[in-house]
Parts: sequence; C-alpha cells; structure tokens
Amino acid sequence: MEIKVMHQVMEWNEDVSEKVRAVLREKRVCLVNVMGSPGAGKTSLLTALIARLRGTFSIGVIEGDIAGQIDAEKIAALEIPAAQLDTDGACHIEAMSIQNLLPAFDLDALDVLFVENVGNLVCPAEFDIGENFRLTLLSVPEGDDKVAKYPLMFTDTDCLVVTKCDVLPYFSFDKERVAADYRAVNPEGPLFCVSTKTGDGMEALVAHLSARIREALA
Amino acid sequence: MEIKVMHQVMEWNEDVSEKVRAVLREKRVCLVNVMGSPGAGKTSLLTALIARLRGTFSIGVIEGDIAGQIDAEKIAALEIPAAQLDTDGACHIEAMSIQNLLPAFDLDALDVLFVENVGNLVCPAEFDIGENFRLTLLSVPEGDDKVAKYPLMFTDTDCLVVTKCDVLPYFSFDKERVAADYRAVNPEGPLFCVSTKTGDGMEALVAHLSARIREALA
Repeated sequence: MEIKVMHQVMEWNEDVSEKVRAVLREKRVCLVNVMGSPGAGKTSLLTALIARLRGTFSIGVIEGDIAGQIDAEKIAALEIPAAQLDTDGACHIEAMSIQNLLPAFDLDALDVLFVENVGNLVCPAEFDIGENFRLTLLSVPEGDDKVAKYPLMFTDTDCLVVTKCDVLPYFSFDKERVAADYRAVNPEGPLFCVSTKTGDGMEALVAHLSARIREALA
Repeated sequence: MEIKVMHQVMEWNEDVSEKVRAVLREKRVCLVNVMGSPGAGKTSLLTALIARLRGTFSIGVIEGDIAGQIDAEKIAALEIPAAQLDTDGACHIEAMSIQNLLPAFDLDALDVLFVENVGNLVCPAEFDIGENFRLTLLSVPEGDDKVAKYPLMFTDTDCLVVTKCDVLPYFSFDKERVAADYRAVNPEGPLFCVSTKTGDGMEALVAHLSARIREALA
C-alpha cells in the first residue's frame, strides 16, 4: 500500500515537473538541480559558480532547507535574487514547491535558476523538479566508496563534481575508484574535481556548465 | 493524503519497534542506533568502539545500506557477528527490518547490537527501530551549521559524537557553535569530540557508552 501511494505521488510530481519545465522553457530559463550530502559544499560551490557565471548569465537561486535560512542569507548577500524553500522537515524538494516559488522571480530577467536541494544523498535523486540538468556533489571527506553505496544519485545525474579537493592530502580518497564506480553506473557523465578554496578545477567546470546552459537556452 | 498514509506507516512502525524492544529486553540485548550523513565516519567509529568494548561486552552489528555490503565486510573482518540489511533504495531503516534480522543472531550470546543506519541526516531520525539509545555523528568536514539545519536528528538523539576531529586545523569549524546549537534543541544530551585516527576523545565516549549499556542490561 505504501508503495502504491508513493507511485501516485511520483506520477503527480512528474506532471508538475513537466509544467515547470514548460514555463521555464517559454521564459528561456535553465533550471539546475544541485544535490549532495549535508556538508558536501553545495552553497560554497554555488557561490563560486555565481562569481564566475554572473558576468555571462543572469542568475537566481532557490535554497532548499529543512529549517532556517542560513544558506539563503549567504546567497542574498551576493545580491542575487534568492528564495528560501523551507521543506518543513521533508528530506527532498518536489516540483510543486518549485512551481509555487517561480512567481517570486522575474523570469523574463533570468537565464539560470539554481536550486540547492536538501542535503541528502538518497531521496532528492528520486524527484524530478523540472530541471534541465542535475549536478551531484561528492566531497573528499565523505570517502571514495559513496558512488557504490548510493548509486541512484550518481546514475541519475548529468555531472559529478568532487569537491574539497584541497584536503585530499589529509584523507584516504582514491579518485580513480570514484571515477571507475561512476563510469560503471553513468558511462557518459562528466566528472570534475574542484576546490572552491583554491579555485582549482573551477575553470573546466564553468566552461562545461556554460555550454550546457547555452544549449538549454538555445 | 500522502501525510495520512505516512502517519499510518509510522504507527505501524511504532508497534513493531515495541515488539523488537520487548524481545531484546527479554534477551538482555542493548540496541544502539548509529546515525549520521554519508561519510560521517559511522563504520570507522563502530570499528573503534568494537575494539574498545569487545573485552567487556559481546557485540553484534547490523549494517544498513542502500546497496552493496562494503561496510558489513569491514565489520565481519573483525570477527564480530554481522548482518547486512539491504534497504534496496530506501533512505532509512524501519523496525520491521530489524525484527526480520534478529533471528540471524544468537541473542542469548549478545550484550550489544549496533545498527549502522543508512547515511542520511534526515529520514532515519523519524523511525524508532526499537533501540535503547541513539548515537548521532557529525563530522568536522560537514560544517558547524548542521545542527541548526537538520534539527530533528540532533533533537531526537541520546548522544552527539563530533567525528574526524583530527582534521579540525584544515576546516573552519566552530565547536562552540555546534555545542550551543545542540544545547538549544537537546539540553540534556551529552557531546563528545573524537578522532578514530588518533584515538583522541574515545576514552570518554567509551566510558559513557559502557555506562549506558550497563543501565540497559540491568
């Protein structure tokens, strides 16, 4: 019975996600769903991406959190249109919440809307929120076994970003193991290793994202 | 509708968790539910605790994972009775799964059964699995804002363990902020800062857990 209801909810989510996609397509806005564990560095990566992309694209951000608005305040401080989505305890974002939040933005003035999902390596992967593409983060301190242990998140992503690479010397983390596990579940998916602290790897990631955003807006 | 079904499932889980608790009470086995984000160091902490507690208590472990059996193999290598619980994609463990797994252990010969929950700072906190007490891990690399951002996990725990304290020099992590946020949601909850790599802080944690286990077995 639980599974059946889950299925109904998922179908309903799919309908709404298609509506969100249609609105954003009409308005020429590219939606990027940013996912990863708590503390994977989602807000830091967004901050670093905004700094590098804002000269080219007009950017907005939806910050999904279970409680509080710590991250939305960080983004708003960058003078970027930002909205807080309080999931009120829920472990993921659904398309309905994005649909409800779109009127908070001037979509005619936006090129890219980043959604920072709830910190969770499991549940968010199951929900299409109407995104054009997905970024999944895995931070070095989390360990190199996470692709094997949480496969859906890495199978259903358009890009894997290994973050906090500046602390590689202090952790036992085999990048080749991550790359091999990722190729096994997602053979076409690109992989980037970055540090927002040193800036290493950001240039290649920004080039890739810029191309994907331009494709979505074409 | 979704919420109503969720409520029914939760009530059903409560019934089963009471049954698990009754069986374990009769068999004098203390169940410890170990929770935290992916990569918080749950398996490493369990390994370190087993090394220090096995002289005093007879220990078994249930390893909950979405896929694979990487962690169960690590525990079984310690020659401790270990069972793998494959949640097949589910983001948390429910009491029914524990009930189903109990026959895999010789409960008459056990004092402590550790359950390593799925790596997730959200969903596992909602499910009573029949435990005597809960350990929640927060690793230094995850950041010092996590208690405020994921409050339920820290409110509904019996003990907070800050892990990977050996890497404190490489991260901006304010232990006082974590302690203050924790006291705000869980005024009586003890807090330990440990490193399984150096052993720092383990002695105090082991003393606390030993006392809690003895209480449960009394």
